[in-house]
Parts: sequence; C-alpha cells; structure tokens
Amino acid sequence: MSQPSLTELGRALRDGETDARTLAEAALEANAHDAYRHVDRERTLVHADAADAARRAGIDRGPLMGIPVSIKDLYGVPGFPTTGGTAVQLPKRFEEAGPVVRRTLDMLAVPTGKTRTVELAFGGIGTNPRGTPRNPWDPKEHRVPGGSSAGAGVSLIEGSAALAFGTDTAGSVRIPAAWTGTVGLKTTAGRWSTEGIVPLSRTLDTAGFLTRTVADAIVAFEALDPRAETVPDRLTAGVRIGIAEGIIWEELSAGVGEAVEAALEELEGAGAFRRSLALPVLDEVKDLFERGGPVASELYHFLTTELPDRLEALDPRVRSRIGDAGNLPVHEYLRRLDRIAELGALASDVLRDVDVLAFPTVANTPPTVASLEAPGRYAEENLLCLRNTCFASYLGLCAISIPVGKDAAGMPVGLQLVARPFHEAQLLSVARAFEQTLGTAAQRLGPPA
Amino acid sequence: MSQPSLTELGRALRDGETDARTLAEAALEANAHDAYRHVDRERTLVHADAADAARRAGIDRGPLMGIPVSIKDLYGVPGFPTTGGTAVQLPKRFEEAGPVVRRTLDMLAVPTGKTRTVELAFGGIGTNPRGTPRNPWDPKEHRVPGGSSAGAGVSLIEGSAALAFGTDTAGSVRIPAAWTGTVGLKTTAGRWSTEGIVPLSRTLDTAGFLTRTVADAIVAFEALDPRAETVPDRLTAGVRIGIAEGIIWEELSAGVGEAVEAALEELEGAGAFRRSLALPVLDEVKDLFERGGPVASELYHFLTTELPDRLEALDPRVRSRIGDAGNLPVHEYLRRLDRIAELGALASDVLRDVDVLAFPTVANTPPTVASLEAPGRYAEENLLCLRNTCFASYLGLCAISIPVGKDAAGMPVGLQLVARPFHEAQLLSVARAFEQTLGTAAQRLGPPA
Repeated sequence: MSQPSLTELGRALRDGETDARTLAEAALEANAHDAYRHVDRERTLVHADAADAARRAGIDRGPLMGIPVSIKDLYGVPGFPTTGGTAVQLPKRFEEAGPVVRRTLDMLAVPTGKTRTVELAFGGIGTNPRGTPRNPWDPKEHRVPGGSSAGAGVSLIEGSAALAFGTDTAGSVRIPAAWTGTVGLKTTAGRWSTEGIVPLSRTLDTAGFLTRTVADAIVAFEALDPRAETVPDRLTAGVRIGIAEGIIWEELSAGVGEAVEAALEELEGAGAFRRSLALPVLDEVKDLFERGGPVASELYHFLTTELPDRLEALDPRVRSRIGDAGNLPVHEYLRRLDRIAELGALASDVLRDVDVLAFPTVANTPPTVASLEAPGRYAEENLLCLRNTCFASYLGLCAISIPVGKDAAGMPVGLQLVARPFHEAQLLSVARAFEQTLGTAAQRLGPPA
Repeated sequence: MSQPSLTELGRALRDGETDARTLAEAALEANAHDAYRHVDRERTLVHADAADAARRAGIDRGPLMGIPVSIKDLYGVPGFPTTGGTAVQLPKRFEEAGPVVRRTLDMLAVPTGKTRTVELAFGGIGTNPRGTPRNPWDPKEHRVPGGSSAGAGVSLIEGSAALAFGTDTAGSVRIPAAWTGTVGLKTTAGRWSTEGIVPLSRTLDTAGFLTRTVADAIVAFEALDPRAETVPDRLTAGVRIGIAEGIIWEELSAGVGEAVEAALEELEGAGAFRRSLALPVLDEVKDLFERGGPVASELYHFLTTELPDRLEALDPRVRSRIGDAGNLPVHEYLRRLDRIAELGALASDVLRDVDVLAFPTVANTPPTVASLEAPGRYAEENLLCLRNTCFASYLGLCAISIPVGKDAAGMPVGLQLVARPFHEAQLLSVARAFEQTLGTAAQRLGPPA
C-alpha cells in the first residue's frame, strides 16, 4: 500500500475529507522505529488545530498547510528542545527558528517532533549513543538508517511524517534517503539559510529535506524555496546523463552497482543518453574529505566557542573524527577553502555538457548496528558511505538521491543525480522525469519488509 | 585656483570646449610628485582617443567618459603591469580587470597610470622602498602621503587625475584622503567586487576611491555602484552626528582635534545635532587590529600560495607585520571572524540612533620620510595612523573622510564620517550637506603649499 502524496493530502485537506488533527494523530501513532529524539503530542496537536482553525476561517497557506513534517534535531523549533544529538538540551537560543522552519510553520505545516541525528551531524552511518533509529527495510536485524539525518527517512517510511527536514554537509540528507528508499534533496550551499540550525560546517552546511517521491519533493521545494523558482516539466527522452569513471564505482556492496546499472539502462530505453565525463577532481576531493576538509576544524571551533563542556563528552565516534583539527594552521585551512572553490569551478564547468551526473548515492549496504562494534569497522563504513556524497558537497553542487532498486541484502539503493550550483529546478525536473520512467519507490521497491 | 569638478569636466567635454586627449595630456604633464609606479603615455592617449572618437560618433557613456583617472597598482588594468607594490611585475593574471575597472573602462574613462601603493597594501603610512610619493602639502620636506593608496590623493592634488581608485582594508583610502586634503570613500565590504585586485584580506578588503570633493564622489559613486543607488539631497540642519568617546580622541597631533572640533561646531551652527554614543567595542577592535586580526594570516596565505618567492623579499616594514600569522590555529582565526561579526552587529545597532558617527580620520600628522628611520618609529606611527580607520573596517561599516582644516604643521586634517553597512547613499548625502556647510578643501584649506 503506497502512502498518499503531498498533493493527495493537500487535496483531501482542502476538500474536507480529512483534517490536520486526524493526520497528526495518525502520524504520532505511526512512530514505531525510534526515529524521534523528542515528541510532544500536545504541542503537535496545537499546531494541527491551528491549521484546521485557519482552514475553517477560509485561509489557505498552500500545499504544506496541515501536513505532518518531521524536523531533524539540529533545527531550532520553538517549543521543542534542541539537543543536536548531544546528551544534553542545548541553550535556549538553539530553539529559535531560522528561515526554513519559520517559513514551514508560517505555512501551518504540523511538526511531529525532532528526529534523531548523529551527534552534531558529524557522521553518515546514523548511529547515536542516545538511540539509533531502526531501518524499516530490515524487520529482523537492527540496521542503521543512514545519517546524519537518521530519523528523517524512517519517519517517511513509517508514516509519522510526509515531509522530513534534514541537513546535508557531506551526505547527511542523501545517505538516509538512499538507505531508506526515499528521495533526498541537497541544496546548493548558500541557497537556503542555515540560520537557526546547529552548525557543523560554516562552509559546507546546507538545509534540505527528504520525501517519499520526487513529485513530493517538487511540491516542498516550490513551497519553500526563497527564490520561488518553479520546476519545469520534461521527459526522460533527451536527458544527457553524465557518467564519470573512477572511485565512485569502487567497493560497491553486492547488488548496488547492478541496481544502478539497471535503472540507467531503463532510462536509456526511454530516450536518455549516457555521456562519459572526465572528472579527475574526484580523487582530490576524497583526499580532502578524509583529512577532515574544513569541517573538522569548523566543528571544533563551534564546540569550543559555544559548547565548551561538550567537546570531551562527545560520542567517541564523533570525537575521534575531530582530532586536533582546531589547531590546524590557518594557512592550511584557507588553502583547503581555496582548493574547494577551484575544484568546484572545474566540476561546474565539466557539468555544462550534461543535464545531470549520475552514480550510486552510497556504495555500501546499511550495516547492522551490531556489526559496527568490530574494531575499526565504524570508521571504515562511515568513510565509505560518505565517499560518493561528499563530492557534491565539496564541489559546491546540488544533488538528489532517488530510490532505484534493492541490493543483494534487500536494502534500498539510491541513484544520485548531481547538477551545477543553484540548478535545483533543473535537477528536480530531470529527477521527476526519471521517476515517471522508473516508478516511485512504492512501485519499484514494493513495501518495506 | 580650484581644479574643475567632475561635473564641470563632463560638461566641457560634452560641449566640445575640451576633449579627452587634451585632458589626458594635461594630466600626464601634471605628474610631479612621484605618485605613479607606472605610466604609459601612449596607452593613456589611446584610451583618450577612443573616448573622443566615441563622442564624435554621438556616444555618451556618462559622467566618467573622457575623465583622467588614476588607479592604484593593486588593480588589474589590461595593458598596464601590476606590481602590487612589490619589486617585481606580478604574473599576467593580475593584469586582468575586475568589475570595478571593467566598468570604469567601459564608460571610457582614461587611465593615467598605476599609482604607488605600500607593498601589498599592508600599511597606512604610504612608504615603499621603490618610491614614496611626496605629500604636496609640504613643499620643503618629503612628507608621506598616507597609504596604502599612496599615490591616489597626490594624483588628485597635483591634477594628474580627477578620480583616483584605491582600496581600503583598514584605512588605505581614508588615510591618504585625510593627509592630502581629499575625499575618500570606503565602501562596505561586499558591496563592490574585489575581483581583479591583488588581495590583502579576503575578509576586509574593499574597493573605493578618492576625489577632490564630496560632490565629485557622488558623481563617481552613482556612475560606478552596481546597485545603482542615487544619493538624496539633504541639509545639514537636522543631521544627527554621533560622538563616541574614548581612544579615537587620544594621541592627536597638535591641531587635529581643534580642526575637527571647529568643523563640528560649524555644523552645529548650521543645525546639526551632536549625540553622545557609547561604543565600548572600540577598545576590543583596537586589540584585534594590533594582533593582526584576520589580515596578517590572510596575507600570509595569499603570498605563500600565489607568490611564494615574494615572502622573504618583502619590505621589512611589511614582513615584520606578517610575522608567523600563517601558523595561527584555525580556531583562533575563526574566533576572530566571529568576533568581528558580533562586534559589527553591535555597532550597527548603536548607529541606528544617528545619521553618522564622526571623529578624526587620522590621529597623527603625516610624518616626514626621514623621521621614520628612527628605530620603532615606523611601527608606532603606522599603528597610530590606522587606529581610527580600522574601526569601520573591522565593524563592517562604510565610511568617508572629508577635509576640514589643517593641523599645527599645516597639513590637512580629515573628518571621518561612518555609517551602517550598505548605507553609502545616506553617508554621501550627509557628507555633501557638510561640504556645502563647511566648503570644499579648495575653499577651506586654500591651495596646497
């Protein structure tokens, strides 16, 4: 049974077939995979009632009005505590809404709670000592949901939200999207304000979201984007898909490459073209990323400045990745920033010849929580899961992950589409055409578990 | 004899009373104080002839068409070498025009040459081992012209240019303006592109210019500003002048405070109000500035990355100020950037209650070149001359220096007016009203020397 789309929910709300309170109650009921760090039934229902009251007064605040939305516990949401995935409630200023949340609440969307995140968003696997959401695609074993927006994809699959806000610094929206069979949009850095969000990297942080389909992503994007761009219609026929060789195709878990290849062949069958691209910058980005890029230093700076008592209390999986990055010489830091800008300009230029670049969103299958206890295993799986997503982040591009199949373990596989900076509308346009050709996750992957 | 204004020159050119070639020849002739690092008579005349030919074809490119302009040797100007004040010609890429120069040349202004700068713009006094322009206000002794835009003000006073481009990171437009009896506008960082300019600080660099009067500054600003704002008319009556106490009034050379106070009293006489402001941030800015702020680290980074062979060949007065700043821990660097942003927000808020903040542009009188040979003297005079200008830079504000009198040594004294970020039009509006009340430098200070 596929869940209703944002368009269907919006129509049902407008036509009076349902109301925001009914949707909110059902959403709260559906919370069953430990996706949330904090829920507050009363407060959620207050928001729902406000949407219903406005509706009765003849007010229409657009397609997100009355829709249950989950919000990563890195965003400030007035009235909900913010932990940023730490063990404590952060100071009150971190509960203030930034532009993305403000806009969402102004449209009378209904927050269902704060979803779990890797501590301070610094990790792609999705674990957290305070609780790791269960990946709904494996009913037997506790598999990770992907991170850092660990509860976001899960909330969509279980139905506790129809739109899930995440953040993406090196893959934190796209990895959970890929591993939960959902769609995840990483916006270009600078397009959406990151004000009101606990910072990981002042250079690379982006606000974004996950949805169940590309069609839903377009509804959310058009409602939320401050540039008010609309997404043009287009067909798969004629789309130029860039294929870059190299490390992005290496170390794939069984079935990942096959699922991606099958999707690409179907797209070709529908008239898309594959074009080989040379992107020699990928190796250098991987190297920069593995050395912490600007991120580890920026996180260290944030912690010591704003939350000095947190640094030594961090999840060891997070603490070990920060290391001594705060003492990096500024010259090396600025060199990295310059290099990121230069590599991004090169990549942007190469991408002019295609509509999107395509490759697996994540190389590995989501590991079980238990398997990560083996020495060195977390670090290894974490670097690997971020390897294919960090490119778009470091190169200043926008990207989306769409579900295209399952791997040999029966877990969802994402196809990552990447486009030039600020070309989100074009990217979503291509992704919608692909979804129309390939089918949604519900159609293509079937029900989870 | 006062020199013609940009408006008068423009009218004479349009009416055919003169032409760009005649103006250019006179400008080249007037070069008599070693203001230029590089002149190229033939090339200047090629530009002048192009302006004249376009004029004959009925083309009017606006108020800068055919006007002789001098350009600091930090800007790329096609066909002119760029040294950035170093001993060598920098690589060809530094000769490419950025937006400010491109716009100026597109308007068919006529470049008269590259004016001398402190090496890499890192100093406020205006000396350079390759040559220090003579300050025209002292016919006997070789006094410094102010820097780092060391040739800019001099070119206006001697008449080798009617508009002089400079850059201002901590005072490099305003100090030479104050010490040569000219007007200098420091734009808000981020308003004018610094592309095509040899960088000193990626955080604080700004492009700006000097003119002989505020009226001329407004002509240039309206022609060049990419936001195409116009400057409203207003009277001195009713202007709220903020007066902050503290270090900006200390260590003033004889006659500086008196000249500023006399001007303020005249402005009050014309109906302006003085309001006391508390700006406790000034001491902290001074401290940040004296430790090199972000600037020393950013310059070190630029040099080692782009001009690695230059670092050890620098003017010792410049080299000593860079020290070991490249090895500053990134955490401390980011702390400084954050603190600058926080202090700027506080200052901006305080300035809401007034139209401008006013105080002496520079505390000290321009020293003689000879006096700077005494041990420690350069460092001391340099910090002092930058002390009152670095505030607007570190606080992210815009500022202008206007000439208001002479000090006890007979050298010009500047009044600095400071306004909130991106309020250049309001700032220029107030400055024009003040100029109308106080008179231009030609009227108030008389002829130089």
